[in-house]
Amino acid sequence: MNSDLQSLTQALRDFAKARDWEQFHSPKNLAAALTVEASELLEHFQWLTEEQSCNLAPDKLAEVELELADIQIYLISLAEKLKLDLVAAVDKKLVLNARKYPADEVRGSSKKYTEYKNRT
Amino acid sequence: MNSDLQSLTQALRDFAKARDWEQFHSPKNLAAALTVEASELLEHFQWLTEEQSCNLAPDKLAEVELELADIQIYLISLAEKLKLDLVAAVDKKLVLNARKYPADEVRGSSKKYTEYKNRT
Amino acid sequence: MNSDLQSLTQALRDFAKARDWEQFHSPKNLAAALTVEASELLEHFQWLTEEQSCNLAPDKLAEVELELADIQIYLISLAEKLKLDLVAAVDKKLVLNARKYPADEVRGSSKKYTEYKNRT
Amino acid sequence: MNSDLQSLTQALRDFAKARDWEQFHSPKNLAAALTVEASELLEHFQWLTEEQSCNLAPDKLAEVELELADIQIYLISLAEKLKLDLVAAVDKKLVLNARKYPADEVRGSSKKYTEYKNRT
Repeated sequence: MNSDLQSLTQALRDFAKARDWEQFHSPKNLAAALTVEASELLEHFQWLTEEQSCNLAPDKLAEVELELADIQIYLISLAEKLKLDLVAAVDKKLVLNARKYPADEVRGSSKKYTEYKNRT
Repeated sequence: MNSDLQSLTQALRDFAKARDWEQFHSPKNLAAALTVEASELLEHFQWLTEEQSCNLAPDKLAEVELELADIQIYLISLAEKLKLDLVAAVDKKLVLNARKYPADEVRGSSKKYTEYKNRT
Repeated sequence: MNSDLQSLTQALRDFAKARDWEQFHSPKNLAAALTVEASELLEHFQWLTEEQSCNLAPDKLAEVELELADIQIYLISLAEKLKLDLVAAVDKKLVLNARKYPADEVRGSSKKYTEYKNRT
Repeated sequence: MNSDLQSLTQALRDFAKARDWEQFHSPKNLAAALTVEASELLEHFQWLTEEQSCNLAPDKLAEVELELADIQIYLISLAEKLKLDLVAAVDKKLVLNARKYPADEVRGSSKKYTEYKNRT
């Protein structure tokens, strides 16, 4: 198997199973846990300037790395629970995004696509 | 290249570059965007029972799939910005988790490891 | 002054001023901090059943109380920064909600108003 | 009754009751909804600079006002559900914060109190 995400999926399934934690892992709960982890990540950045956020000290970066891992872990677990393929999902979304945000029209602007005139 | 995440990383880099969006992609902003997307995912589940969350209608599931994609997209973008490897990060976290939550001790319990006696 | 929220606003302004923390309190940063606090609240509930969440042990409830306080604190600080009146904002929103969710039509349903037919 | 928050509490109770929505309002669900609303607020600011976040256009500010209202609404509803008094909670938290962050020691620093030496 060549896929990163598939191997991680298996590792996480085994981890939860060995602890009998699958009973807690409803999609609703996993979505809540994922949101909580995303905020723990954000907490590291909340009082920093954008520039400071680009230059984290090594110990801070090591903490941030583990927060990213937590988010990835819950994301994989949730995808597995819902029988969704994350890579296929991202591919699908990128096609939609390319249509919603044509490079020529949105270059250099952070406006949401809904704010563009002549668009639905 | 055999890695899912590496190919997605490249695709996302190209996407942002073509739109000159890299200027908005400070780690601070990406962490905020990731949190916002996680909450959009949670919104689909917030009033459902856990059981209902296991049995989504196909159209709802298709929406959830795109939310998972958004989270994965920002997670990859942020990891790249910080020069972190998501797979290595997850591996590292799983080792730590195995130590913090020994299967024998935590089986069937959702308590945080900090709530266990005799632990730091 | 009869207003709860006005007295709290003053207390919070003094607190931040005495610490020279106003420099960090841009609306962007306060919104991030508020989100982080909301997730810390959610963390207490994430693995509980809905029923368990109605019956918190006293020590857990005391922790939850302080999370609610944190959210209220950032909410007041942000409203003040933006020169918005929280009570007026809630009044305005309740009028909108009453229109969006007519009691007769939505009784007992958690569907978002956007999911109702014949509505914008 | 002189209290802002008490009058709002009553209005929100009536609103939910008229729609038979109390069944959805477990503390767990309300905490999730509150987090979702906090992120909707953050979404308005995520790509702005801190400076831009201080100077919102009137239409943007009107949207932000309603997001603040949503957060306040769920915060009041949750406090009521848990029989907690928000004003008392904030008072309690401010006493704790004054102890954790003595003005003389933390002036001008955004470091978390846990990062200070000689503190638990």
